[in-house]
Amino acid sequence: MDSRPIGVFDSGIGGLTVVKEIMEQLPNESIVYFGDTARVPYGSKSKETITKFSFQCINFLLEKKVKAIVVACNTASAASLDAIMQSYDIPIVGVVEPGAIAACQVTKSNKIGIIGTESTVSSGAYEKEINVINNDVKMVLKACPLFVPIAEEGWQDTEIAKLTARKYLEELKDKNIDALVMACTHYPLLENTIGEIMGANIKLVNPAYETAKVLTTVLHDLKIQSKSNKNSNYEFYVSDNPVKFKKVGENFLKRPIAYVQKIEIEKY
Amino acid sequence: MDSRPIGVFDSGIGGLTVVKEIMEQLPNESIVYFGDTARVPYGSKSKETITKFSFQCINFLLEKKVKAIVVACNTASAASLDAIMQSYDIPIVGVVEPGAIAACQVTKSNKIGIIGTESTVSSGAYEKEINVINNDVKMVLKACPLFVPIAEEGWQDTEIAKLTARKYLEELKDKNIDALVMACTHYPLLENTIGEIMGANIKLVNPAYETAKVLTTVLHDLKIQSKSNKNSNYEFYVSDNPVKFKKVGENFLKRPIAYVQKIEIEKY
Repeated sequence: MDSRPIGVFDSGIGGLTVVKEIMEQLPNESIVYFGDTARVPYGSKSKETITKFSFQCINFLLEKKVKAIVVACNTASAASLDAIMQSYDIPIVGVVEPGAIAACQVTKSNKIGIIGTESTVSSGAYEKEINVINNDVKMVLKACPLFVPIAEEGWQDTEIAKLTARKYLEELKDKNIDALVMACTHYPLLENTIGEIMGANIKLVNPAYETAKVLTTVLHDLKIQSKSNKNSNYEFYVSDNPVKFKKVGENFLKRPIAYVQKIEIEKY
Repeated sequence: MDSRPIGVFDSGIGGLTVVKEIMEQLPNESIVYFGDTARVPYGSKSKETITKFSFQCINFLLEKKVKAIVVACNTASAASLDAIMQSYDIPIVGVVEPGAIAACQVTKSNKIGIIGTESTVSSGAYEKEINVINNDVKMVLKACPLFVPIAEEGWQDTEIAKLTARKYLEELKDKNIDALVMACTHYPLLENTIGEIMGANIKLVNPAYETAKVLTTVLHDLKIQSKSNKNSNYEFYVSDNPVKFKKVGENFLKRPIAYVQKIEIEKY
């Protein structure tokens, strides 16, 4: 039994979709979340910059004495997980590998679509992970940068969301894919609209759900689960305005956020 | 005669619309531009964070021995110009005051619309500047966060841009405004779409153009103009990937960018 918290970080607010899954699947675990809201988004930035930011996020979480770290950001997982794994000894779970595993389980045609930020799409990280699992799988990738601000505006069910989804996704429909990985933490908020465009024959994969499943296995295998939910506790830290994070975050989490504190991330 | 360069900074690429106007109106002047592409956008961030970032941008430009500084970012001008003015002795021109002056010259109904980022709209900076000029003017403000990614996707003339503009701007049409300030450097790229929604009776004000005019006056009054364009020179610095900046930036500037260098802005 190990009651230390799980550390989770993201470029901003999107990683709360992963926290929500961890809360549901692992109710005994405490969580320390860091959202880098002063430097969000990571998705349009270079690998070098994203890696530097990710190291600072992890250094902060280590100070909070976490027992494992979840990189709840597709961009950071895709750009920096290899560098992170080489530099830190603590158990680390990204969102790319769980998403890749789930997509390979779902596909029958061995043709998978992947949508995410510019950086995730150009990183090659999903291709690499999926082809380690199944070398026969072919992939079609597409960056959908407008999905993030649409989700943050709460416009996921508008005509603008539908037209934008159609503009980005129409070309994927002709490629015979039967699974589509929503490889950005914001995208599951547009799941209905994306599903409507893609049709019922294309299964949508949400890496947040799969990541919490992988985390469960890791904690179990290393025998570092928390056995009781008596003391489970959630702490939230950000690098900018905690008020806005609290307000928007409660919509993502579907529960109240008690404690949000601003920290200086550049110092880590 | 003073051949030292003008320093210009922005949260990213949008400030190049101001650089374009300075190049046209002041062809004798050299320019050093800094775009904070590692931390873009500023528009959703807090005043405290924006001020810290702005000071770092200015400290970098001062090292380049500039003779004046243009804050080519509505968000930074709105959030931080007072703090900047109090902390630095060098001549400094923001984009808010020039936009406010132009809007007051244009309006006959004394009712002005202002569109910008969340931070610019909630700062109160435009209200303050405009009411210093004319206390009778009433204002209607509206944040339009999707305009920036639409401009960066090059979607300014699509149905998505039109629907988004209608969703944001429809409510402004009932308010009897006769001038609309495009108070974000990206928005002039959507000028045609915005103009179509607002109609010919509402004049669009572009602060970039007005800012270059104010800069001309400041340089003249202080007698620090450059007299010759023989040595005028443009240098561009960014805090992230220079390749992407060069590619997108050339579209904003409508001319080639010869020299882009990445620097570590956190050190300043």
